[in-house]
Amino acid sequence: MTQLENDSFLRACWRKEAEFTPVWFMRQAGRYLESYRRVRAKNDVLTICKTPELAAKVTVAAVDELGVDAAILFADIMLPLDAMGVKLDLVDGTGPVIENPVAAMEDLEKLKGFSPKDHVPYVLDSVGAVKQALDERVPLIGFSGAPFTLASYLIEGSPSRDFAKTKTMMYSQPELWMALMSRLSRIVSSYLLAQVHAGVDAVQLFDSWSGCLSPTDYHEFVLPYNKEILESLSSSRVPRINFGVGTAGILRTMKEAGGDVIGVDWRVPIDEAWRQVGDMAIQGNLDPATLLGHWPLVEARTKEILARIGGRPGHVFNLGHGVLPETSPERAKELVNFVHKATQQRS
Amino acid sequence: MTQLENDSFLRACWRKEAEFTPVWFMRQAGRYLESYRRVRAKNDVLTICKTPELAAKVTVAAVDELGVDAAILFADIMLPLDAMGVKLDLVDGTGPVIENPVAAMEDLEKLKGFSPKDHVPYVLDSVGAVKQALDERVPLIGFSGAPFTLASYLIEGSPSRDFAKTKTMMYSQPELWMALMSRLSRIVSSYLLAQVHAGVDAVQLFDSWSGCLSPTDYHEFVLPYNKEILESLSSSRVPRINFGVGTAGILRTMKEAGGDVIGVDWRVPIDEAWRQVGDMAIQGNLDPATLLGHWPLVEARTKEILARIGGRPGHVFNLGHGVLPETSPERAKELVNFVHKATQQRS
Repeated sequence: MTQLENDSFLRACWRKEAEFTPVWFMRQAGRYLESYRRVRAKNDVLTICKTPELAAKVTVAAVDELGVDAAILFADIMLPLDAMGVKLDLVDGTGPVIENPVAAMEDLEKLKGFSPKDHVPYVLDSVGAVKQALDERVPLIGFSGAPFTLASYLIEGSPSRDFAKTKTMMYSQPELWMALMSRLSRIVSSYLLAQVHAGVDAVQLFDSWSGCLSPTDYHEFVLPYNKEILESLSSSRVPRINFGVGTAGILRTMKEAGGDVIGVDWRVPIDEAWRQVGDMAIQGNLDPATLLGHWPLVEARTKEILARIGGRPGHVFNLGHGVLPETSPERAKELVNFVHKATQQRS
Repeated sequence: MTQLENDSFLRACWRKEAEFTPVWFMRQAGRYLESYRRVRAKNDVLTICKTPELAAKVTVAAVDELGVDAAILFADIMLPLDAMGVKLDLVDGTGPVIENPVAAMEDLEKLKGFSPKDHVPYVLDSVGAVKQALDERVPLIGFSGAPFTLASYLIEGSPSRDFAKTKTMMYSQPELWMALMSRLSRIVSSYLLAQVHAGVDAVQLFDSWSGCLSPTDYHEFVLPYNKEILESLSSSRVPRINFGVGTAGILRTMKEAGGDVIGVDWRVPIDEAWRQVGDMAIQGNLDPATLLGHWPLVEARTKEILARIGGRPGHVFNLGHGVLPETSPERAKELVNFVHKATQQRS
């Protein structure tokens, strides 16, 4: 279906048989890699994101070093907001901190318009640079933060544990909430579509924080927007991954948003999660912290995931969230090899 | 079964019919109450905990102001650790910060022994003072942090998002992990038993953070200890509540630990959670942030919970985690009244 040398990732996304179970990791290009730290020592995160050669370099280096079956574009989920005039600082070990959080309709109105070609041309150029450097070896995944996750950063101003400000707005200023979420949905749609046009082979919607919501709140305040985005991408013919953290209780509701693959974390047995979402592919779900332990435990937990999948086509092996900075790259690479060997089709 | 004026909470814990659904809130005596802030202005948290008159005062004031059906002893989950020589600082808005985190067997060996009567006599005196002040109006709940949650504070040194250090020890130093968890289990057992002997009418095991684990990790590294604790209390004849946050994916495993009541947060529909745990009572599960919104939404979400329960005996109404500091006491009180009225038995 493509000219890719290794199309195992795309085949799994479409629930087709593949030579082996594909593997990639969220944040596979990150601080735990020496190659990344070398680039990062001379450039801050936003500079890397805005310099296509650098973004491409770290993106492709991760593929080369780990032997994973997909690249994921090096970018920050805050880039579209940065382009709209949100003053942000990416604080190491903390996350994005925002100088002018959104609290009222005026704040929302102050944000500039967003056109991917005009405002994040570097992201689209990075896609081109990565595709060229990959030379059809493995597919490239594009991504965006989902509206709830972006909104939570915009409203809280800094990473939050209880999302009290975000929920307060959601509950008590429904018009402002709808205006913000609609605006973010349109941005995310156009951002992902632009990445597809620039050449990405799949997209992932990172709704990392919507797992903080009850199923009813998710259904009422988040689902319509994610659904709109995923539907807007349906004619693009690239697989759409819908990912969240701590979603064990909202999987059936997330499924209503559509998409082709559901990404789950380690807090739920992957076979139970798959049963709940039914006819989608599934991505996950090793606890990233497992990689900080001894190999026998990594192997045991990985075997368990593969046993729960039981060889059914449609599994993309991944961690349940991003690679932790303390991870040993050798251990990560060992995991990739292990999954490949354990799932190799004898034909 | 008791001489209590209002025994609705205990009846619900034992899955017996009650006049109405009982309500209490985690952190019901806290910063959102003026009466608490007045005491807190002159004393730090540890001083309040260590001064039975003050602990009793804030405990009982919350019951009087809210009209809830149970008191919960004002105490900090770190008290037993403090008594063992862990140098800790309770930082407002952050949580406990520890000067000497546990990283090796030597650190564990340095911790002093723990005998409730000798090391936390003030907790037991506070129980007496609260029981006297309550004068059998409502029952008093005692509590302890569970071993995993205590261990995570001890190992991380400060509140953590990914529990990387805790999991690293769990995965790669299993002997140290077992030694630490066994030690903490014995402490928690003796601490809760001492509270029962001092007069509490129920106990809650707060395993707030074990929801960060996969079901398999929970089963292997946490369940045996929680089970030991809950079993050690079975002859005490007080109801035992087993509570965690983000536990949608581990409920069946948590149930194996025993106890009489399972406490769940809002991330799972309460009827689904109840189906999973079967013959236990259930406590929960309104998102505490709901109370920051308009009343119609609080009412709608509360009605939904009650509808999911469908009048079955064995429901203790609670928030899914502690009251947020931004909460209006009037709103909290309104919620208590609403649940009482909505569930009043017409006889």
